[in-house]
Amino acid sequence: MELIKKRMSSIKHKIAVISGKGGVGKSLVTVNLATGLAVNDRDKRVAILDADLTGPCVPKMMGLKGERLGAGPAGISPVTGPEGVEVVSMDFLLPDDESPVIWRGPLKMGAIRQFLSEVAWGPLDYLLVDLPPGTGDESLSILQLLPEMDGVIIVTIPSEVSQAVVKKAVTFARKMEVPVFGIIENMAGLVCPHCGETIEVFSEGGGAKVAKEMGVELLGSIPIDPKVSMDSDEGTPFILRHPDSPAAKSFKKVIEKIEKKVKHE
Amino acid sequence: MELIKKRMSSIKHKIAVISGKGGVGKSLVTVNLATGLAVNDRDKRVAILDADLTGPCVPKMMGLKGERLGAGPAGISPVTGPEGVEVVSMDFLLPDDESPVIWRGPLKMGAIRQFLSEVAWGPLDYLLVDLPPGTGDESLSILQLLPEMDGVIIVTIPSEVSQAVVKKAVTFARKMEVPVFGIIENMAGLVCPHCGETIEVFSEGGGAKVAKEMGVELLGSIPIDPKVSMDSDEGTPFILRHPDSPAAKSFKKVIEKIEKKVKHE
Repeated sequence: MELIKKRMSSIKHKIAVISGKGGVGKSLVTVNLATGLAVNDRDKRVAILDADLTGPCVPKMMGLKGERLGAGPAGISPVTGPEGVEVVSMDFLLPDDESPVIWRGPLKMGAIRQFLSEVAWGPLDYLLVDLPPGTGDESLSILQLLPEMDGVIIVTIPSEVSQAVVKKAVTFARKMEVPVFGIIENMAGLVCPHCGETIEVFSEGGGAKVAKEMGVELLGSIPIDPKVSMDSDEGTPFILRHPDSPAAKSFKKVIEKIEKKVKHE
Repeated sequence: MELIKKRMSSIKHKIAVISGKGGVGKSLVTVNLATGLAVNDRDKRVAILDADLTGPCVPKMMGLKGERLGAGPAGISPVTGPEGVEVVSMDFLLPDDESPVIWRGPLKMGAIRQFLSEVAWGPLDYLLVDLPPGTGDESLSILQLLPEMDGVIIVTIPSEVSQAVVKKAVTFARKMEVPVFGIIENMAGLVCPHCGETIEVFSEGGGAKVAKEMGVELLGSIPIDPKVSMDSDEGTPFILRHPDSPAAKSFKKVIEKIEKKVKHE
């Protein structure tokens, strides 16, 4: 714990990205938020801890597949991605894509503790933590281990099925006494690239509804865009690759809100 | 363990539905597979164990929100859903949607063990187990606790980012020595309801590619359809509500394949 405190003391802002349900775009939000923060102010140092131990996606989305963590006298050194964003992920420790991490709670907790205590992050402005979906062991451990978390961002999709689960995530964060920055609704209406009409693939307005019901801010609504999925597959954050897309424009507004929230603390 | 064995002995076929990544439609597949199996042969008794303890979605998708498990001399009694499908879910035990289940591994394991040993399933033809995403504690526990599992079905979406994680799920099942029935690719091409053109929202052909690479069968590819999301939100399986949609037609072929696999065992 002492070691973690020491390591964390050189990090100005710590933000966790969580979701109740999996597959809603938590890693996508983390990756683009990190890159966006770094682009907005080139003096800022930004890092990501990909704490999703069983399905780490951040390296793939940042074009860092196959990279390895370094080690030196100061500790484990992160891998540097686009715009200088530094990344630590379980994926960098696995021999190949096919190897699952079949670990029980205590082992996972140990890995997370090690990531927090042994990585030589150096002075950072932002550390974004991509938590695994749900309110299980890893989320619990990270939130308990990280001192003075600035806040959490909750990612959801518009469907009612995910709303029921996102409420649990809000309650989870409140029980852990971490401020909730707000909700990002991902996968909102898709604009058909052929005819320009909007298609509500996963229903409509769920993000706004759940934000109101739980008394938290809706930080923004990011439309579905096939280009976003393609950019992730090809390892470049869409905010860099397609900066003028409606998805990137909505996302930039979210980033501005988060920068303001962090300043006002 | 003795009690679990006794309870499980009256169940002919046990199938687990897993995914590497969350949010790919695992619960959707479980719900529609169960209903489809029940519709195909009205004499068959089908049940679902929703083992996703932190984000249980099955009750919502089957119109069973707010129902409660019963208790009698024979044990816990499941809730009966559409087409007589019986359901047991953690959701039936929670006071409201906002309460998260913040449990560590051993507690989760205990809950799963109780579901397996205390529920009076009675004689069943099929028990489908909806596992939580990833290769974590719950998946591990269920697969270790359930004797003689017939096989697992792995759900994925077409994007490359999910392929890396689905490979882990295949390896996971193999390490646990459970037969892999095959892969279902969900959220394939969306047909625009306005112009009829196809949009590859989450890239294309990932399911076929990963199936070939891992040497497992691609059971089918289910297109994205806003009606599917709406049906889930409204609590009716799309295979009942929109039986003539392309999604339902593709899904029925998957069900036929699974029925054949189970017969040939």
